[in-house]
Amino acid sequence: MDCIFCKIIKGELPSVKVYENHKVVAFLDINPVNPGHTLVVPKEHFENLLDGGEEILKEIMLTIKKVAWGVTKAFDLKGFNVGQNNGAIAGQVVPHLHWHIIPRFENDGLEAWSRKEYKEGEMAEVGEKIRKEII
Amino acid sequence: MDCIFCKIIKGELPSVKVYENHKVVAFLDINPVNPGHTLVVPKEHFENLLDGGEEILKEIMLTIKKVAWGVTKAFDLKGFNVGQNNGAIAGQVVPHLHWHIIPRFENDGLEAWSRKEYKEGEMAEVGEKIRKEII
Repeated sequence: MDCIFCKIIKGELPSVKVYENHKVVAFLDINPVNPGHTLVVPKEHFENLLDGGEEILKEIMLTIKKVAWGVTKAFDLKGFNVGQNNGAIAGQVVPHLHWHIIPRFENDGLEAWSRKEYKEGEMAEVGEKIRKEII
Repeated sequence: MDCIFCKIIKGELPSVKVYENHKVVAFLDINPVNPGHTLVVPKEHFENLLDGGEEILKEIMLTIKKVAWGVTKAFDLKGFNVGQNNGAIAGQVVPHLHWHIIPRFENDGLEAWSRKEYKEGEMAEVGEKIRKEII
């Protein structure tokens, strides 16, 4: 498979790893939003969150916390963002499930996405639409 | 405790819930980045990811997948973002651990944060710094 994260996991491409266990690996993003930006990646190839099985997703979550702790300590952070993009439309560049841990620094210039308002009645409709699709 | 998410969970403040189990609840964000923007929240009060215990974090991860599936179906999405902010510096507004599921639509105008480059040798140093703090 021509997946760059699979190649990193197999050691066919270099990376700066910060953590690894039998199911999950964490390495630095080579083009960080901020220094210390780390990716948490399952060794098995899944395209996105909806493809991940329960066991690997739980393992990923525990690894996110473990790595976030290390990143926080390393930079004495006051905060960090965790993010995960699904689909090219959402900014997913590598189609192998991965989570971003992004350290935040004072005046780093990163801005949150702006917020919208629901029209009257719209919120209840949207809620109903989602509710009935959840299995 | 004067936490608005605790009040929502107790039913003291209104919300449009889309999913609930004994440990986790999911409801619409009242000021969505896009319509259908949903929050996944543990019923127990934790301030952020580093305060969450293993069991609740695993349950949250499974709920994120479940709710993301519903949001995807409801809007026939091609993608979505999952995000979680820790600390005011990272844009955390309500200090009760919560995860954002943000539906993405064509031309919704949302832009990814810009990327930086490491200076020569910097990446290896940063990796070493983080690696030794991970327990």
